[in-house]
Amino acid sequence: MTTLALIEAAASRLHGHARVTPLLNAPLLDAAAGRRIFVKAECLQLTGSFKFRGGWSAISALPPATRAKGVMAYSSGNHAQGIALAAKRHGIPAVILMPADAPQVKIANTRAYGAEVILYDRATEDRDAIGDRLTAERGLTLIKPFDDPHVIAGQGTTGLEIAEQAAALGIHDAPVLACCGGGGLSAGIALALEARAPGLQVRTAEPADFDDVARSLATGSIQRNAAPTGSICDAILTPQPGALTFPILQRLAGPGLTATDDEALCAMSLAFTHLRIVLEPGGAIALAAAIHRDDLPDTVIVTASGGNVDPETFRTALDRFPD
Amino acid sequence: MTTLALIEAAASRLHGHARVTPLLNAPLLDAAAGRRIFVKAECLQLTGSFKFRGGWSAISALPPATRAKGVMAYSSGNHAQGIALAAKRHGIPAVILMPADAPQVKIANTRAYGAEVILYDRATEDRDAIGDRLTAERGLTLIKPFDDPHVIAGQGTTGLEIAEQAAALGIHDAPVLACCGGGGLSAGIALALEARAPGLQVRTAEPADFDDVARSLATGSIQRNAAPTGSICDAILTPQPGALTFPILQRLAGPGLTATDDEALCAMSLAFTHLRIVLEPGGAIALAAAIHRDDLPDTVIVTASGGNVDPETFRTALDRFPD
Repeated sequence: MTTLALIEAAASRLHGHARVTPLLNAPLLDAAAGRRIFVKAECLQLTGSFKFRGGWSAISALPPATRAKGVMAYSSGNHAQGIALAAKRHGIPAVILMPADAPQVKIANTRAYGAEVILYDRATEDRDAIGDRLTAERGLTLIKPFDDPHVIAGQGTTGLEIAEQAAALGIHDAPVLACCGGGGLSAGIALALEARAPGLQVRTAEPADFDDVARSLATGSIQRNAAPTGSICDAILTPQPGALTFPILQRLAGPGLTATDDEALCAMSLAFTHLRIVLEPGGAIALAAAIHRDDLPDTVIVTASGGNVDPETFRTALDRFPD
Repeated sequence: MTTLALIEAAASRLHGHARVTPLLNAPLLDAAAGRRIFVKAECLQLTGSFKFRGGWSAISALPPATRAKGVMAYSSGNHAQGIALAAKRHGIPAVILMPADAPQVKIANTRAYGAEVILYDRATEDRDAIGDRLTAERGLTLIKPFDDPHVIAGQGTTGLEIAEQAAALGIHDAPVLACCGGGGLSAGIALALEARAPGLQVRTAEPADFDDVARSLATGSIQRNAAPTGSICDAILTPQPGALTFPILQRLAGPGLTATDDEALCAMSLAFTHLRIVLEPGGAIALAAAIHRDDLPDTVIVTASGGNVDPETFRTALDRFPD
């Protein structure tokens, strides 16, 4: 079970290896949104997303003899890159199973970090069967993308930093909108804030029509998305909340928020102009909710959780939403 | 005269008002460049460039009665925005004279920060005459973009941060490539490093054919550029080095470097993909030199001095230099 102690231990292991990312803001972004928005820029994390934190946390927590045999991950891209670089820096092999339709930049970068990438067809191949065979044959340890106590703890180090950075800005009472797929980042941050900044409450942000977490929170039981794909927010199209993450969110998170793909593209363009950071659609969904939802207070903190985006998608954001 | 004491005093006045920007790096950027590159991301500074530091430093150093009457600046954009926001946050008026052909985003943002923007035609109007009239009529204080001891001191706070951040990474011996127009940033950083990190030496980076500083350093006397415009690096097309900045650079800087407009666009694209930051051409010129010049050591620090770029120019970078 992930606890504050586990998050603090992860922070110790990450120290000097992961980056403390800045909490950014911009007066003209605030003017555009009609509220103060502070942006935890995890797109500036190594590998371009918060996933490096969880990857490093999980790999560094393995017993050395187990770790030496290598790790495996399933991922459409950001967990893949986080695991790949963390494995490389631990000097161990990494095998990553990626859907063939993942963004090219994510596949290319995962390979460039030194991982062995195996592509599969989401529609016709059984990812778990391929993964089970590989872990058995090679003695690899599977690092799940969110339902792993050490992964949640690693993502939770983001929350420790938010607590400290918000306090330095005099912010003690605000929602923290977290881009949410399976809930690893949201749950980790929620646990950290519970202990370190109880006035800051996590609220999940998901793509419209892929709001499994929001509906699960509203109904009190795990709900699934109707479709596996159909949003440009590829990083956070997880079918349902995790078995470990959901109880944490149920206890600590406020009602879930959503934003549309167009609102995510608009947020990417505003982040380009006013924050000078590059966001991918899934990494912009919390910012999109902070800009476009009306029922939020005057001061909001958001995670900008990733920035691995193909140039075509980024150009679309700039073309469709010029200032 | 700018001294370490003046830079330290500026750092005190900036504390809590300007942002400590991160020193970023990326394994895949290093792989593309063939050397380790650490990027001081001043595009993440308030107003999107380091100029906010110098603007805040100069305005906060004015006697209160003088300050209350307001300030004036000449600028194609980044100094304009830095002065405008610093003036606004001091509660004083700012009048900015901008060339009518400055990037639209810079004009719009300067106005949005609350400054009165007066456009002039570079070819037919006398900027200094307009400025002299306005300062006399309204009692405004002119804040020069680089040849002002407090402006240089403000930019020098970037150097204090580089010294500390490089030491934390174990980097004690490397060139620091600084995007260079009139030399305020380069000179300020050079003074800070002389005192705090003597193994780090500033080298100026300029657009090819606008290498007035490099030629001035090489010949030992102030040289001018042949043309006033003709590069996309609008932020750093200063005609010649400053009277205050040049002696500092002559004493402390290594030989000047240059990069072409195309190399700047390529650097912008690589920064997009691997660092997830938005750079303008002039803010990417040091990174361009670090990537494209051969005669540099294995570890290089660069300033990414600004990120205020029109979407068209950014799209051009992504289109022309896909990975």
